[in-house]
Amino acid sequence: LIDRTSVVNRLRGVLDPEIGISIVDLNMVRDVYIEGSHVKVTIALTVAHCPLAKTLQTDVEKALKKSDEIKTVTVETTAMSKTELNELRTSLQNRATQPRPEQGNGPGPGINRLGKRELRNIIAVASGKGGVGKSFVTSMLAVQLRRLGYEVGILDADLTGPSIAKVFGLKDRPSKSPTGRITPVLTKTGIKVMSINLVLDDPEMPVIWRGPIVNSVIRQLYWDVDWGSLHYLLVDLPPGTSDAPLTVLQSLPLDGVIVVSSPQELASLIVTKAVNMAKKMNAELLGLVENMSYLTCPHCGETINVFGEPQGEKLAKQLGVPFLGSVPVDPIIARLSDHGQIEDYSTPVFQTVADELRLRASQHVQQLMQGLPIAWSTQQSES
Amino acid sequence: LIDRTSVVNRLRGVLDPEIGISIVDLNMVRDVYIEGSHVKVTIALTVAHCPLAKTLQTDVEKALKKSDEIKTVTVETTAMSKTELNELRTSLQNRATQPRPEQGNGPGPGINRLGKRELRNIIAVASGKGGVGKSFVTSMLAVQLRRLGYEVGILDADLTGPSIAKVFGLKDRPSKSPTGRITPVLTKTGIKVMSINLVLDDPEMPVIWRGPIVNSVIRQLYWDVDWGSLHYLLVDLPPGTSDAPLTVLQSLPLDGVIVVSSPQELASLIVTKAVNMAKKMNAELLGLVENMSYLTCPHCGETINVFGEPQGEKLAKQLGVPFLGSVPVDPIIARLSDHGQIEDYSTPVFQTVADELRLRASQHVQQLMQGLPIAWSTQQSES
Repeated sequence: LIDRTSVVNRLRGVLDPEIGISIVDLNMVRDVYIEGSHVKVTIALTVAHCPLAKTLQTDVEKALKKSDEIKTVTVETTAMSKTELNELRTSLQNRATQPRPEQGNGPGPGINRLGKRELRNIIAVASGKGGVGKSFVTSMLAVQLRRLGYEVGILDADLTGPSIAKVFGLKDRPSKSPTGRITPVLTKTGIKVMSINLVLDDPEMPVIWRGPIVNSVIRQLYWDVDWGSLHYLLVDLPPGTSDAPLTVLQSLPLDGVIVVSSPQELASLIVTKAVNMAKKMNAELLGLVENMSYLTCPHCGETINVFGEPQGEKLAKQLGVPFLGSVPVDPIIARLSDHGQIEDYSTPVFQTVADELRLRASQHVQQLMQGLPIAWSTQQSES
Repeated sequence: LIDRTSVVNRLRGVLDPEIGISIVDLNMVRDVYIEGSHVKVTIALTVAHCPLAKTLQTDVEKALKKSDEIKTVTVETTAMSKTELNELRTSLQNRATQPRPEQGNGPGPGINRLGKRELRNIIAVASGKGGVGKSFVTSMLAVQLRRLGYEVGILDADLTGPSIAKVFGLKDRPSKSPTGRITPVLTKTGIKVMSINLVLDDPEMPVIWRGPIVNSVIRQLYWDVDWGSLHYLLVDLPPGTSDAPLTVLQSLPLDGVIVVSSPQELASLIVTKAVNMAKKMNAELLGLVENMSYLTCPHCGETINVFGEPQGEKLAKQLGVPFLGSVPVDPIIARLSDHGQIEDYSTPVFQTVADELRLRASQHVQQLMQGLPIAWSTQQSES
């Protein structure tokens, strides 16, 4: 039979989607009501109408339904009182004073790493070679995190082949904000995008960059842009292990790197190089996504291993890197990308990958606590 | 009815596969025999057992069979006499004195363009982004030209993702020749290959190159290697329009550039950049190859436009560039590439592309004539 303790233990695994700490530890579980195989829980939110409330509800439901005994779940929400919030704030600020262990190497010679600002998680998406769908993975991760209610931005640092603006159908030029900074362009669903393509005069002219120029352009795309407060800034890196991705990796205050591969063994040899490059940087290797793993024939429904046998999972194990998921090739992607409608695309794989990302990002919780949750700073004064 | 004049006129279009001049102008057509719808011609070869003889025979057959009246063709060969060869040599050397018009810009600041040596046609294969199959196209072009009897080499200049050695299954290290130069590694069918992967200590470590290093490595891969006499040296460029491909384009004495694209409109926007970059260089833009144009389902035989509608031909027209052909995706390619057996692959598309390339390369005939045909230098003294 279901008892309160087992329910609370299951809820221990649910993290506040913004703070990244267990909702049990945050004292957010208010009421647990059990009747046969039905469970009703009440969760106290830190902000009454937080856009992440739905995500939290879904997470609670998923966690409880993992139990064989629990058949139906109802999640109700309430808001914390001002006193409770103040207690939580103090407790979070105490946690934040613990220093974060330093990893990897510092920035390279002549490169100053830029400051973190109000960006909670800066995550770079890398690949050992081009054409494995790195920009597609970046876009879909942003779309999925946005669907969950997060504030998300994309910095398109793939200067030689920028495609982020195109897949989101963005044509407006970024404007200057009153502070003199550049305001990023918003997608349909509210993702903030900044790309060299949006400011170039002729998007068809080649961008023949020399090393120092890459450095200075990235600086501008990151620093001179008014990103505001974001839960996630995803950085679409130039492919490969050459100067350009290296400069970006060294100059931005990254929290994590995701590596994208394709099933061809050739690409995998190369992705090993990319993983080794990322390991040397001052950022956590969050995991590997295998793209274009297989194709389901739209005519007969059979599976076609277009680029050879999928092997991302095996490769990730060999490299000692978490495996985040296999993404199939889908002819619809090309059409949506060409028409700037990538936000209409949905595949279960990215839900898994985004969840994995949220979980891993929560391990940076000490750093997150340098500022309070974004939802608080914008809405808490009203409550 | 068929007459001698119409046969000779058709043969005017057939170029000597090495010299690149019409076999009629070279006085190689010796005998034309017509009987009903059957034509027999005798061609005098410059070298008795030239490895290109079969290619010339096939070209003659193809040219004659374009006529509706000619049903069957027999091509016989004989060898030129020493006197005839000496006359031809003098005539070729006179042609060679005509200066070749200079095109495009010179090398960039700080870059010295290297000399030409005994390499008749140095052709770079470029792409606006990675993953469009540039290395596959380079390999298959080399394989096809080799099948036709040419001396072919591949310089793998894609330093950040070198894959040429892998697709040909090469594992031997290049050795030092008696002259102190490096001897390139030979493939099964005799293609000379030089790649950074063949000399690197750990092929899985990232090659984090800075601009000046790229320059110096390319210099070594090209200049310090004993290429010998080659009809074609194909250079597999790094993808994109950044520092690395630019340095290679500027430092090698290229005769032509081929651009590879994929059907995704995104890649096409980017390929426009690559075409514009190539146009600015001191080399002829030989044309565009569209790779991964479509897939034929191995289960049901239906065509799948995996990456969107093929559009290479339209794009080439827009850009004012010759269109060389559409190459389908084929799951077999991944398997052969992974097993180093790319030389076993064959598709009619590359026959067309290679023929187109030979034709366009023949426009550089004045330059070719700076040296005499390779077959002569190695065999003519015997006759």
